[in-house]
Amino acid sequence: MSKQINVTIWNEFRHEKSNEIVKKLYPQGMHKAIADGISADDLNIRLASLDDPEHGLTEEVVNSTDVLLWWGHCHHGDVKDEIVKRVHKRVLEGMGLIVLHSGHFSKIFKAVMGTNCSLKWREVGEKMRLWNIEPSHPIAQGIGEYFELKNEEMYGERFDIPQDGKIIFISWFEGGEVFRSGVAFERGHGKVFYFSPGHETYPTYYDKNVLKVIGNAVRWAKPLIYQEHTAPNAKPLEAIRTPNPHTVSAGIVQDVDGNTKK
Amino acid sequence: MSKQINVTIWNEFRHEKSNEIVKKLYPQGMHKAIADGISADDLNIRLASLDDPEHGLTEEVVNSTDVLLWWGHCHHGDVKDEIVKRVHKRVLEGMGLIVLHSGHFSKIFKAVMGTNCSLKWREVGEKMRLWNIEPSHPIAQGIGEYFELKNEEMYGERFDIPQDGKIIFISWFEGGEVFRSGVAFERGHGKVFYFSPGHETYPTYYDKNVLKVIGNAVRWAKPLIYQEHTAPNAKPLEAIRTPNPHTVSAGIVQDVDGNTKK
Amino acid sequence: MSKQINVTIWNEFRHEKSNEIVKKLYPQGMHKAIADGISADDLNIRLASLDDPEHGLTEEVVNSTDVLLWWGHCHHGDVKDEIVKRVHKRVLEGMGLIVLHSGHFSKIFKAVMGTNCSLKWREVGEKMRLWNIEPSHPIAQGIGEYFELKNEEMYGERFDIPQDGKIIFISWFEGGEVFRSGVAFERGHGKVFYFSPGHETYPTYYDKNVLKVIGNAVRWAKPLIYQEHTAPNAKPLEAIRTPNPHTVSAGIVQDVDGNTKK
Amino acid sequence: MSKQINVTIWNEFRHEKSNEIVKKLYPQGMHKAIADGISADDLNIRLASLDDPEHGLTEEVVNSTDVLLWWGHCHHGDVKDEIVKRVHKRVLEGMGLIVLHSGHFSKIFKAVMGTNCSLKWREVGEKMRLWNIEPSHPIAQGIGEYFELKNEEMYGERFDIPQDGKIIFISWFEGGEVFRSGVAFERGHGKVFYFSPGHETYPTYYDKNVLKVIGNAVRWAKPLIYQEHTAPNAKPLEAIRTPNPHTVSAGIVQDVDGNTKK
Repeated sequence: MSKQINVTIWNEFRHEKSNEIVKKLYPQGMHKAIADGISADDLNIRLASLDDPEHGLTEEVVNSTDVLLWWGHCHHGDVKDEIVKRVHKRVLEGMGLIVLHSGHFSKIFKAVMGTNCSLKWREVGEKMRLWNIEPSHPIAQGIGEYFELKNEEMYGERFDIPQDGKIIFISWFEGGEVFRSGVAFERGHGKVFYFSPGHETYPTYYDKNVLKVIGNAVRWAKPLIYQEHTAPNAKPLEAIRTPNPHTVSAGIVQDVDGNTKK
Repeated sequence: MSKQINVTIWNEFRHEKSNEIVKKLYPQGMHKAIADGISADDLNIRLASLDDPEHGLTEEVVNSTDVLLWWGHCHHGDVKDEIVKRVHKRVLEGMGLIVLHSGHFSKIFKAVMGTNCSLKWREVGEKMRLWNIEPSHPIAQGIGEYFELKNEEMYGERFDIPQDGKIIFISWFEGGEVFRSGVAFERGHGKVFYFSPGHETYPTYYDKNVLKVIGNAVRWAKPLIYQEHTAPNAKPLEAIRTPNPHTVSAGIVQDVDGNTKK
Repeated sequence: MSKQINVTIWNEFRHEKSNEIVKKLYPQGMHKAIADGISADDLNIRLASLDDPEHGLTEEVVNSTDVLLWWGHCHHGDVKDEIVKRVHKRVLEGMGLIVLHSGHFSKIFKAVMGTNCSLKWREVGEKMRLWNIEPSHPIAQGIGEYFELKNEEMYGERFDIPQDGKIIFISWFEGGEVFRSGVAFERGHGKVFYFSPGHETYPTYYDKNVLKVIGNAVRWAKPLIYQEHTAPNAKPLEAIRTPNPHTVSAGIVQDVDGNTKK
Repeated sequence: MSKQINVTIWNEFRHEKSNEIVKKLYPQGMHKAIADGISADDLNIRLASLDDPEHGLTEEVVNSTDVLLWWGHCHHGDVKDEIVKRVHKRVLEGMGLIVLHSGHFSKIFKAVMGTNCSLKWREVGEKMRLWNIEPSHPIAQGIGEYFELKNEEMYGERFDIPQDGKIIFISWFEGGEVFRSGVAFERGHGKVFYFSPGHETYPTYYDKNVLKVIGNAVRWAKPLIYQEHTAPNAKPLEAIRTPNPHTVSAGIVQDVDGNTKK
């Protein structure tokens, strides 16, 4: 029997409580809709949200999560820095991270990217068409040449992300913009996928193509290894013959945060 | 007359005060040695260090710097987060950043990379040979197939950086390791170059090849534009004909930090 | 006085003779319109075309060209393989190459890419909007957030190119497609830029933004070095102490084409 | 039952017949040693060599191969261009390609790279240490921080390959050089891995780490899809409202080789 992938779907989960349109669309939250939509035997899915203790992302949860999904929007600022640091560390050790829609401005996505992650936006419910640029990529399996969403928020270029992302989807918007809508990164030992559709007032997380992409991304982001980052003092593997002009300064050692230790 | 490049060389500048070997090698600090070594008519060079007010990196200094060099080692933790944020923002807007040696573990380098930037190290003063992998790159001009440093600290792989860096130099170490010693990145509108040699107890910053590389990197990292990152609400450029199922939620606006504004 | 850049603009130059619309638009050929449009003191521009002897690309011309522009369409197959090999070799040694529009299917572009370079297309004269994704890149200087061409041929994804291209422009098409319209590569010591607009029946090469991009690309692609590729037998730089189990096989030497020489 | 991967191991297979050292080491050829070394239930392995009819790479063989391994050295020039074209086309459609050692100068590797693939070399049987730069990559699974080969041919930088290769291994050589020894590319829908050890006069293809890497690479390179490259004339997905200034030129159609068809 193959081991299940431990998936945690994190959602800000406030729009669904405060906005009637969103509440009607996603009565149990977008995270629950995604969980139901990608449910499969190989996935062990948990939910977490902003207002849970430690945002639902305790050490125990993070360390037992293989792939973390993240949807946030208006309350990025309420996510505690120490939790962001915990998640970031775990991504670099191997945990997969899938960032959805307005999560582009989340602290965790900006932290792993190192850039501003800014973009243009417009909410008029226009048509969005996602072109599949890399049909051979695991995330694009089962997706045709393109798929459409009848109503979506426009996210437009320039999207401030590093250029090493492998672009899987580029979107066309009715109003005249384009966007790199599906981009796959590697950071440390972890994989990171950004996927742009998913405005809270539309039924995007019931769309079969969107769910297919998210499910594919979960399998793609599953880590092969977990490995902590250390900065070891290494013994030479070969004899050192070059004369050293001075006595080596005795034993300065740093931890991975760059702090000096005795 | 061509406009000068405003260069600020930042140095932790503590080893030079506390360690006799370093003091003798760099009586006015490594930043001063670098400034003297790369001095040229097209460069307007200032110095800054950790113990200056605001670490010498006031708003005024940062906003009038085209290229910032960074050498830090044992006191990364003493650099204030607000200054790191200020520098990071300016890099994304266009300012060049050149990170030297143990600066790999500085807050600013980790922030722009999004990774841990960890590596192996050993300080026995062994021979280091830097192979020039991209002779056509601006940073490698005037450098031969390789150059050597008789005594250096070993920095060895695995170096935890994103793989989109353009590798200019790969080093061979006498003790048996290899290292990506010169790597060029772009983040936001700014350029970032990491260059690994430069342990404080060796005369590395008097080496003509090292100085040549740093001088080249300064010209390469000079910004063509400065541009703030915004997240504008964009008017459609084409008529929207798709019917929208609901009234648009009124006026949620976010700033570039992801905070909701009225 | 700064040295001029030697530019050669190569054009198939047959549509302009056989098609009345094209003849009227570009009576002296598209290459001449581009030459006039980018004319500047720092450029020394020559023209060449398919029906010239050796396609106008003699050893002398190629070896004295810093940046070569290429427009071809229906007669790629008529370009001699030996000329393609000559140009390819020179690109790897440092010469810049700018491939325009239907040149995506030229032998030389496919040779430097290693891929099929296929795409979707449609000729109905629709609106094309090119989004400037990298405003800090030299090729994008002087170009705003986007620019439009009223009538162009549609080139749509999937464009079969390697993903290491730095994407400068992504296009939106009225008919619903998107396209990576400006992509910058490095191959060997040479730079390669693909720029998609330029169908022969539209006045694209009189558009000021198109000309600005091409002019920028020429300066960007100017080589810093020319260097032949060799496969030298290298003497060791360090003593070899590991015992070798057998006598070295005597003197097999290969040239850069992989042929064995005595 | 999971479907097997069809693997074809291609070997020049001439050194093993003409050189006593090689004959003794690999009496049935290096391809047979590799086949034995990576043999597993999920692999269906065939052998092919230069002197077989059509080099053992008939349409039938190529089209039923999921992953092709390639070892060639002194006789690259004897490989027929039409066979190279056949293999190249299949790689772009999805077939995996693993290029070994002196195969760096093979026609097929140069064709998929678009570069010269030149390097430095020396055959004195020195020590080689391969550093594992990406322990989270599928190809590096089961490999430690590094592994060593007691005697190998030196291959040194500069290696003329595109910089989009994901670097898995960087080598240290006793004589003072470094080399990107394991590099993973994607071209078209196919994956390409270059792996540098494997000089014919050493028992490299009996080394358990080398075999582990090759076996891993085969699984990594297995295609998810096969898809031909076409250049379709596409119907618009959205209404075209922009007036077209002229009648569209009637029906020029090109095939994927860029030839005009009626």
